[in-house]
Amino acid sequence: MARAVELARLGHGSTSPNPVVGCVVLDAEGRVAGEGFHAYAGGPHAEVVALAQAGERARGGTAYVTLEPCDHTGRTGPCSRALLEAGVARVVVAVPDPNPKAAGGAARLRAHGVAVTVGVLAAQAERVNEEWLTYARLGRAHVTWKFAATLDGRSAAEDGTSQWITSPEARADVHRMRAAADAIMAGIGTVLADDPRLTARPENAGGVVRVPLRVVVDTDGRTPRDARVLDDAAPTLVAVADDAGADLKADLLRLPRRDGRLDLDALLRELAARDVVSVFLEGGPTLAGAFVAQGLVDRVVAYLAPALLGSGPAALGAAGAGTIGDLHRLTFDEISPMGPDVRLIARPVPHPGKEQ
Amino acid sequence: MARAVELARLGHGSTSPNPVVGCVVLDAEGRVAGEGFHAYAGGPHAEVVALAQAGERARGGTAYVTLEPCDHTGRTGPCSRALLEAGVARVVVAVPDPNPKAAGGAARLRAHGVAVTVGVLAAQAERVNEEWLTYARLGRAHVTWKFAATLDGRSAAEDGTSQWITSPEARADVHRMRAAADAIMAGIGTVLADDPRLTARPENAGGVVRVPLRVVVDTDGRTPRDARVLDDAAPTLVAVADDAGADLKADLLRLPRRDGRLDLDALLRELAARDVVSVFLEGGPTLAGAFVAQGLVDRVVAYLAPALLGSGPAALGAAGAGTIGDLHRLTFDEISPMGPDVRLIARPVPHPGKEQ
Repeated sequence: MARAVELARLGHGSTSPNPVVGCVVLDAEGRVAGEGFHAYAGGPHAEVVALAQAGERARGGTAYVTLEPCDHTGRTGPCSRALLEAGVARVVVAVPDPNPKAAGGAARLRAHGVAVTVGVLAAQAERVNEEWLTYARLGRAHVTWKFAATLDGRSAAEDGTSQWITSPEARADVHRMRAAADAIMAGIGTVLADDPRLTARPENAGGVVRVPLRVVVDTDGRTPRDARVLDDAAPTLVAVADDAGADLKADLLRLPRRDGRLDLDALLRELAARDVVSVFLEGGPTLAGAFVAQGLVDRVVAYLAPALLGSGPAALGAAGAGTIGDLHRLTFDEISPMGPDVRLIARPVPHPGKEQ
Repeated sequence: MARAVELARLGHGSTSPNPVVGCVVLDAEGRVAGEGFHAYAGGPHAEVVALAQAGERARGGTAYVTLEPCDHTGRTGPCSRALLEAGVARVVVAVPDPNPKAAGGAARLRAHGVAVTVGVLAAQAERVNEEWLTYARLGRAHVTWKFAATLDGRSAAEDGTSQWITSPEARADVHRMRAAADAIMAGIGTVLADDPRLTARPENAGGVVRVPLRVVVDTDGRTPRDARVLDDAAPTLVAVADDAGADLKADLLRLPRRDGRLDLDALLRELAARDVVSVFLEGGPTLAGAFVAQGLVDRVVAYLAPALLGSGPAALGAAGAGTIGDLHRLTFDEISPMGPDVRLIARPVPHPGKEQ
C-alpha cells in the first residue's frame, strides 16, 4: 500500500476534479504484477491501468488501492467491475470513497465473493489525497494558505517593500505549489498593493502546462481594469458581493455578504461546483485572517526567511483570536530547509466531532 | 580535533569568564593518551587535564587544542609551559587566542622547537566558544535573543495573554539555555507587564546550581519595589540612565543615554567588565528591537509554535529597518523540532570588514 500511495502522488496536480489514486496488483503468489495511477481527469483509473499491466496474472491475486474502487460509470467504466472481471481474490483499500455517486465499490466486490479490507495505511492515503477528500466530504474547495515572511512574521517592510524576503529556491517552490492548484486566490488589498499576476510561471515550474484559475476576492468590486490579474495569461474570476456595482470586464461571481464581508464558505462551495478542488490562497493578511477565523484553512505553508524586520505588515491579519484560549492550533507536519529559508507545513488540529 | 571540540562543549555554561576548551593528547604512535576539558573557572585547563592523564605517553606525541594554549599565569600556570614540560612534539590549534593577556602560547611553543599548526576545524571550535570569543574580541558580553511566538510572529494575544503559546518541551529548553548564560536580561516593559522571575528553575534544568545574574534594562528607574525580579532568588542588576532618579533597593548600573535611550553597547561593556560573558535576552519587543537595530544580537533562538493568532504584540518591535534594503539578514544554523514546536537558531550574516 505504501507503493500505491507513492503511485497516487504521481497524479498530484493533474487529476482534478478527480482524486489521486494509486493501485498495485499482486498475483496469487504475492509478486507484483501491475502498477497504476490515475494520471488525469478522463484518463483510465489506477485500477484499470494496473489490471491491464497484470493481465491474466491478476486472477486469484490481490489489488491494493488507495481509494475505494468506484462503482459508477463516469467517463470510464466502474472499477469494481474491472476488478471482478480480472478475477482478483482480494482487494485492500486505504480510504473509503466519500462520494455517494462513486461509493459502493467495496460492497459490490464483497457481494461477488471478493475479500475486501478497508483502512490499511489510511492516514498516508488521506494525506496524499487531502484536497480531493476535503472537496468530496465537505462540498467545498480545499484551501492551502501560503505566506512568506521574516522570522518575526513580517511579510513586507514598513514602506511596503518586500522584494525579496525569501530566496529564489523558496519562490520556485511557490510556483510549483501554485501550478498544482486548481485556483490561485488573493484579496483585493493585495491586488491593489502589489498588482500580482497570480500565475504559475512555467519557467519556474518545470514545464507545467496547466493554467490554474485566478480568483480575486473583491467584495466591493474595486479591481482596476488594467490589473495584471485580468490579463489573458489565465482565466480569472472576481468574487464580488451581490450588491456590488462592479462593472468589470471579468467573470464575476456574485456572492452574499456575511457580517458585511463576502461569505467565504459560499465562495468555496461555488468554486467546488465549478470543479475547483484546491485553492492556493496567497494573501494578503486581511483575507488570510478571515479564512483562518472561519476555520477554512486546511493547510498552512509558511516560508520563513532568516531575517528580521521588527516593523511592517504582518503576514496574518485579525483572525478572531483576541485571547490565548482562542489560539488557532495547528500541527507541524513538515519542516524543510528551502535554500537559506525554511518551509513549514502545518495543518489544523482536528476538533473532536469535526468530520475527518 | 572534532573530539576536542566535543570535549570543549562539556564545559559550556560553567567556565565563565573563561573560554571553553577541549584537548586530546596522542602518543608518539598516534593513539589517544589523554583527554581533557576546562570544566570551571579556577579549575585546571584542558591541556593540563589531558597531559596528566597521558603522563609519560605524551612525550613525542601531539596535542590537539580547540584554543591556543595560554602563555600567562592566572589562577593556573601557563599551558604552553605544561606542554613543553610534557615533551609533546606537535601542537594543533583550532583558534588563536584573541586575549592579549593569554596569547603568545603558539609563539613560545615554536620557539622551543614544537611544531605548531593553527586553524584546524576552526569554524567548529569558533562556534562552541562563540560567547567567549565575542567577549574577548569585542570587549562586550555576547547576546542571545530568545523569543517564543506563533507561526505568524505573535508573542501574546491581543489581550496580553500568552500562557502558553509554546510547549513544555520548548519551555524546558529555555530553562536549560537560561542556566547556561551568565545573565538573563529583560526590559522594563516586560517586568511591568509580566512580572517575570528571570531565573533558571532547577526543576526544569536538570539540577543546575549556577545562578545567572538578572539584568533589567530600566532607563527611567520604574522597576516596582515588589517586582519578582528583585526577590532573593538571584542577584539582580537594574540598568538605569545616569540621570534617572531611581531609588531602588537593587544594585543600580548607571549608564549614559544614547538618542534618549540607554546606551546598550555601554551596558554590554559594563557587563563584560563584571565578568558577564553571555547574556540571554528575553524581551520584550521594544528592547529586542533596540538590540537588533544596533547590531548587538549575536544569536537568535526562536521557538515557534504551530499556531496562529493574527493579532497581539509582535515578538520583535521597531528595529530600524523601514525598507527592505535594511532587512537584518541572518542564517539559519539549526532547525530542530522541540516537542510540537520548532526551534530555529540563527546568526547574523557577517558583514565584510566586521571583525570576526
